[in-house]
Amino acid sequence: MKITSLNNDLVKETAKLLQKKYRTDLFLLEGEKSIEEALEAGIEIIRLFVEEDSFLFSDFKNRIETNSSVLAKISSTVTPPKAVAVAKKFQYSWSSLFKKVLLLENIKDAGNLGTILRTAAAFNFDAVVLYGDTVDLYNPKCVRSTVGNLWKIPVFEITDFEELQDKFLDYQRFATLPKSDNSIYLSDYTLGKDKFLIMFGSEADGLTDSLKKFATENLTIEMSEKVESLNLSVSVGICLYKLQNL
Amino acid sequence: MKITSLNNDLVKETAKLLQKKYRTDLFLLEGEKSIEEALEAGIEIIRLFVEEDSFLFSDFKNRIETNSSVLAKISSTVTPPKAVAVAKKFQYSWSSLFKKVLLLENIKDAGNLGTILRTAAAFNFDAVVLYGDTVDLYNPKCVRSTVGNLWKIPVFEITDFEELQDKFLDYQRFATLPKSDNSIYLSDYTLGKDKFLIMFGSEADGLTDSLKKFATENLTIEMSEKVESLNLSVSVGICLYKLQNL
Repeated sequence: MKITSLNNDLVKETAKLLQKKYRTDLFLLEGEKSIEEALEAGIEIIRLFVEEDSFLFSDFKNRIETNSSVLAKISSTVTPPKAVAVAKKFQYSWSSLFKKVLLLENIKDAGNLGTILRTAAAFNFDAVVLYGDTVDLYNPKCVRSTVGNLWKIPVFEITDFEELQDKFLDYQRFATLPKSDNSIYLSDYTLGKDKFLIMFGSEADGLTDSLKKFATENLTIEMSEKVESLNLSVSVGICLYKLQNL
Repeated sequence: MKITSLNNDLVKETAKLLQKKYRTDLFLLEGEKSIEEALEAGIEIIRLFVEEDSFLFSDFKNRIETNSSVLAKISSTVTPPKAVAVAKKFQYSWSSLFKKVLLLENIKDAGNLGTILRTAAAFNFDAVVLYGDTVDLYNPKCVRSTVGNLWKIPVFEITDFEELQDKFLDYQRFATLPKSDNSIYLSDYTLGKDKFLIMFGSEADGLTDSLKKFATENLTIEMSEKVESLNLSVSVGICLYKLQNL
């Protein structure tokens, strides 16, 4: 199949997925690598646009050859990718066996979210919880920042505080704080339970009071007094690296 | 002083600094915090544009009140900052007493560079070396990503391999590699000398062969096989955190 008109209905339907309000069930995968990783993970791909005369995904059933104007219209990068796919969102099931869980509250930057998911998968965390008003997981920039690792760790959205309390009642719960009088330093932590939750707040404001109160202890990365804080992705990376073998 | 015309010569001169080729001697600082940190560090500020009727930097001599159109023209962010300054580049002197040095080769992403400088300052590194074809340190996005920490660590540009060899002859030199048969893991490192250099390559390609050969040993972050690599800023963060107390 070949489509080269910007006004084609399938093209228009696909371009809508660049906006969050249309991503109820479907989302976009931009670029070959991202599509390959989704296919490997068993993610259902509804349709796939590829550059005309390319051999990309030549066995794929709902494959549409197109031109660079269409690819530009249905993607979010400055240079359009050679392939863009429409994929179906995947629902994970919660397991009480999850031992190492990362929670992100009110995260606003899509690049941070994607980078953090990649990091959490790298350090064998069991799940990531998005809590509060968080950037959309299926934002194209977030998907891109995971560099193909979106499917390697289950992600859950929780909006209700009571649900959070129920799920993590028997977990050791770390609040990460930039500086605090009653924090333990990352190098000195001790773990009393066999399951833990580590919580990070938003880039600008850190954790809200309700999550600070929910924590069983505070955790801080030891560093120079002359720097106020680290970048969020960097802080998460250091903590997850340190806690991976608990 | 008040300037509100987009065609004013000072405005045009200032806007030029958004392009690398004009940043020979001067560069831009966007936003109040960035300017404050530069003033605290003793960086020379040539002129300063602030939003009209604001009280920002009211004691500053070369202060120019202006409107949001001018601020938008002389800044790089989507939402223009309330203050933009023109500052003079600062030259650091090399010291053979530097014990912990970070080298970045061919880094392309301005956000990564800024984030990494912030991290290096936080973990008390003594200097950062930019080697090869690296994004400009004074790129506004890089300056912004340091979040006011640009002056807290000396940065040096080295283009010549012989200069590099001379400077780091008596250092322990780590090449960081994603995976390698003869790497030591970050958790098992040993340090034989009292000075060390840790080297990271570009986001896409890692270190070049010449720097790999220059290394005295290889260092790898232990992580899951299912993820190919970490984001560069995250990798640097984990290594500098780990090596800070050597």
